[in-house]
Amino acid sequence: MHPVTKVSIRHLSKAARFVPKAGVYPQGFKVGGIHCGVKKDGHSFDLALLQNTFGKEATAAAVFTTNKFKAAPVQVSSKILKEKHGSGINSLVINSGNANAVTGAQGIKDAEDMVIVTDSVCENPKNSTLVMSTGVIGNNLPIDKILTGIPKLALSNLGDSHEHWINCATAICTTDTFPKLVSKQFTIGEDTYTLAGLCKGAGMICPNMATLLGFFVTDAPVSASALQQILKYSVDRSFNSITVDGDMSTNDTIVAIANGAAGGELIDNNSSCAERYARLQAEITSFAQQLAQLVVRDGEGATKFITIRVKDAVSYLEAKNIASSVANSSLFKTAMYGKDANWGRILCAIGYANAQNVIPEKTSVKFIPTDGSEHLELLVNGEPEVVDEARASQILELEDLEIEINLGTGAGQEATFWTCDLSHEYITINGDYRS
Amino acid sequence: MHPVTKVSIRHLSKAARFVPKAGVYPQGFKVGGIHCGVKKDGHSFDLALLQNTFGKEATAAAVFTTNKFKAAPVQVSSKILKEKHGSGINSLVINSGNANAVTGAQGIKDAEDMVIVTDSVCENPKNSTLVMSTGVIGNNLPIDKILTGIPKLALSNLGDSHEHWINCATAICTTDTFPKLVSKQFTIGEDTYTLAGLCKGAGMICPNMATLLGFFVTDAPVSASALQQILKYSVDRSFNSITVDGDMSTNDTIVAIANGAAGGELIDNNSSCAERYARLQAEITSFAQQLAQLVVRDGEGATKFITIRVKDAVSYLEAKNIASSVANSSLFKTAMYGKDANWGRILCAIGYANAQNVIPEKTSVKFIPTDGSEHLELLVNGEPEVVDEARASQILELEDLEIEINLGTGAGQEATFWTCDLSHEYITINGDYRS
Repeated sequence: MHPVTKVSIRHLSKAARFVPKAGVYPQGFKVGGIHCGVKKDGHSFDLALLQNTFGKEATAAAVFTTNKFKAAPVQVSSKILKEKHGSGINSLVINSGNANAVTGAQGIKDAEDMVIVTDSVCENPKNSTLVMSTGVIGNNLPIDKILTGIPKLALSNLGDSHEHWINCATAICTTDTFPKLVSKQFTIGEDTYTLAGLCKGAGMICPNMATLLGFFVTDAPVSASALQQILKYSVDRSFNSITVDGDMSTNDTIVAIANGAAGGELIDNNSSCAERYARLQAEITSFAQQLAQLVVRDGEGATKFITIRVKDAVSYLEAKNIASSVANSSLFKTAMYGKDANWGRILCAIGYANAQNVIPEKTSVKFIPTDGSEHLELLVNGEPEVVDEARASQILELEDLEIEINLGTGAGQEATFWTCDLSHEYITINGDYRS
Repeated sequence: MHPVTKVSIRHLSKAARFVPKAGVYPQGFKVGGIHCGVKKDGHSFDLALLQNTFGKEATAAAVFTTNKFKAAPVQVSSKILKEKHGSGINSLVINSGNANAVTGAQGIKDAEDMVIVTDSVCENPKNSTLVMSTGVIGNNLPIDKILTGIPKLALSNLGDSHEHWINCATAICTTDTFPKLVSKQFTIGEDTYTLAGLCKGAGMICPNMATLLGFFVTDAPVSASALQQILKYSVDRSFNSITVDGDMSTNDTIVAIANGAAGGELIDNNSSCAERYARLQAEITSFAQQLAQLVVRDGEGATKFITIRVKDAVSYLEAKNIASSVANSSLFKTAMYGKDANWGRILCAIGYANAQNVIPEKTSVKFIPTDGSEHLELLVNGEPEVVDEARASQILELEDLEIEINLGTGAGQEATFWTCDLSHEYITINGDYRS
């Protein structure tokens, strides 16, 4: 424990701690962001664009919200992606400040026009653009401003520098307190590839300001079907393993794009490239987790970053359901906010999770201190431990907390979930949002 | 609208508004409550007893928590009820202040001892008592105090007056701000029957102080199987249709007891008494709803009482899932706290509910003002209305709010859910509980 360091780190702004000062970006992509006039303050960035400049068509994959009230851009993008079987997607255009959700026929037309204008300016074949929106629900887009903004952005404000990527990440933010951008390089065999991605979201922030948008791009060569399969796997273990308030928005979208600009053999989902596929899947999954964790860091009112690790379950799904149940419990989250070692709340949420194979007598729970010090057992094989409250308080002072739940089934499956605490500030943000 | 009246009503304490000054109680039951020493303040009531004094064995039914971590009294009571097939249950003994949950073999023995001593003092045949506990998790009961308290309560503090019933309701409270007691008389054909019931709970209040306990008794003659079936039906539509924070405790139990002291023909669940059965089911269901609504009124930090009515769904289950989804949305609940007519949050929670048959273009949502004034449409057949914000604010000033969601499926099924808002006070209560 280094309490002095901890305190000083915590008081640095999140932007200073979590926004990278530099990055490494994949070949053959340009990005950017500008203010086009959707946001009413007259200066905040609200339009983002990504363009594949490699000269060969990229493959793309996406996962969308399962909410029945799907926003217009979700409907339009999923239709394009389906029609093109994940090939030939070269642009992404995203506005923030207005979600284009519950906007009727006009909303669909506006989303389609964003695609048409982007394709035209970027000299893409027809329907090569996916579109996303985030912001207020139920109002039509100020579509003229957006359609005027797209050429301005595409022709004069795209690039591949760190600053361009930061601009792009900033332009998709709504009530986020910092732009969320991650990049990294990795090798598969002899080949070196690069991944860069960004996302936004800070709780569903109300359906007025819809949650999760994100994309990541790589210069690795990946077939459309392999990319979709890897995206699904990685999103299950990243964006679908985080919660701020348990609400799922009308606009959630994560897109992956691969242009193959860094060369090497095509990574497909057949047996002949199983090893390269597995490597890529592992790299993308840990990358997506890094990105998703930034959303939890920026959770509305959050003062804690909490990892819930469920071990030795009968299946990944049961492990995840249990982790999710604890991560979504308002009582658990308020206890963490209050720095209260209230293991009963953890146990209770395990007990009502959607999981058949929980045996109280085999269940153990402990705190894993994130400063590397000795862990603290709370429950061992269903028997409550006599907890040293002073030690528990010491652990709960840390900003980053970790709970390990071991189900003792012998089957060894596990899952991890990330959540934040539930604070007074969350109520203030969401109770007073529109006033 | 009578704003002056409204304001003055709201400022009366909930105890003054929701605790009855008198009641009408079923024949052949005695009840009471005393302080026996579980609660540490030295005076708060913490032991309750109900005794069937009719001289004929009563029938009983119960529903218990489905949490995997079932408290000892839940395990013991469900075993007794099963062994006796719902007949010959003559006593209920309940302590508050300690939940006897996650207490191992000693916990089971303590719960069994409470049954043995109650049966002995009340001169019951063996295993004629059901036992419940509510309070702190993970500590063994101060069993000597309870076993000493039972004879004191059974022999000198039982009665059938309004005061005895209030004492009994008070003795099962934990952090409840008022005792929850309801009674009423009704007729089936020529016969007049009486129902009285009480419950406790104010949110899961943390698994330290477990949620929902309740029971109701009647002097109507009901077979054990009819009583179990009616209890299940009524609890689905009452205690299982309320939420404060979505957490389900280790101790939840609702018991129904019928002693037949008021005479009349036996009400069974066969075709020959279908009409009397239906009448009793309707009476018990609306009674259970009244009781359950008191829990929402006393929700931790609650400033609003909110009714969510879902109409024209394809099934009761889908209607209930949608109502539950809205009622549990933190974003919706904070919006109601903030008096914000944020219909997007309602829509969003409908969209992610576990229900197949939601068609956005057929969905309508409105506020039904509880002062009898004109309703306010928010969404009509999927099209957002231009909402008069001043009028919306007027409606949201009321303490009691009602949301009507019409799914327009043509199948006409409906369900109702009750919830409260999510306030700063909830965070304070649950974040700081143990400090």
